[in-house]
Amino acid sequence: MGRWQGGASERLKEAALGLFSTRGYDRTTVAEIAAAAGVTERTFFRHYADKREVLFVDQTEFERAFLSSLPETGDDPMRLIAAVLDGAATLFPEERRAWSRARQTVITTNVALQERELLKMSTLALTLTRALTTRGIDPTSAALAAESGVTVFRTAFTVWVTETETRTFPAIQQTVLTRLHALIG
Amino acid sequence: MGRWQGGASERLKEAALGLFSTRGYDRTTVAEIAAAAGVTERTFFRHYADKREVLFVDQTEFERAFLSSLPETGDDPMRLIAAVLDGAATLFPEERRAWSRARQTVITTNVALQERELLKMSTLALTLTRALTTRGIDPTSAALAAESGVTVFRTAFTVWVTETETRTFPAIQQTVLTRLHALIG
Repeated sequence: MGRWQGGASERLKEAALGLFSTRGYDRTTVAEIAAAAGVTERTFFRHYADKREVLFVDQTEFERAFLSSLPETGDDPMRLIAAVLDGAATLFPEERRAWSRARQTVITTNVALQERELLKMSTLALTLTRALTTRGIDPTSAALAAESGVTVFRTAFTVWVTETETRTFPAIQQTVLTRLHALIG
Repeated sequence: MGRWQGGASERLKEAALGLFSTRGYDRTTVAEIAAAAGVTERTFFRHYADKREVLFVDQTEFERAFLSSLPETGDDPMRLIAAVLDGAATLFPEERRAWSRARQTVITTNVALQERELLKMSTLALTLTRALTTRGIDPTSAALAAESGVTVFRTAFTVWVTETETRTFPAIQQTVLTRLHALIG
């Protein structure tokens, strides 16, 4: 059994993505998702606020994966961000690629989902900016380093979910970060 | 008369921002905006699809301001982007600062407006990415340069609308771009 087939929350994720992919996000109802996962609507709403949220991990949990890799010491913004990106890369093992790929396809078909995804990334950048400023890094440098880190992460993610891509997420992200340094240096 | 007091479109902008600032975005109706601008609701809808759109310039027009400064020749992504940013800076003369500042305050109070703003910036980054790839620049470098350019623009804009900031938009943006090079180089 894969990691997404455990509890009701994972079954709902699988069921929702299957329905979104085959019949379209707009035409899928919460009742249908719950039925496909073999649970009640009430159970659905115990796990997710609405059908959109099925596609998004909890923001706090998502940010924790980044922040937990922030080194305890150091004040070079881009070195700190590089360590954060290394840690975040572990969120995307191979067994998650198929799910992420299908999810990405659904998101690109719907403006509201794109907006939700952008807000998630923007909020992450703000959280990283704050984490850097508490290290004494000035606000502008902190914002630029955090935003650049999120850009590297998003760019790597886009490459990783490309249909024919086979390199691992950490390998792709490292290449993208190196490319950024070469471009802007 | 300032630049925002010309036609109905500008009067609607002024009226809307005034109402959003004093009574709140959510509590302001299109009918009230139209009345405050001295026009009918029908006139409002000839200019804007909804009250949200009053706060956003036309995306095509916005992007044109960036693309029109893209040099005809050259293949260094960050040099091309620097020229694009220089051109875009002319969109933000001093007489626009008060309006932009009030607009920013309204946007930060409302998640839907923040999402709309993020989508506008993300779409701009995609348009710039495409413009760079048509120059033969590889997609990853094009995306990184375009996203970095948008990050510099947004960071500069945030500084420019800060309550006590007095430097001009072009001066701030140049400083931010220089800082980015120092950080990532």
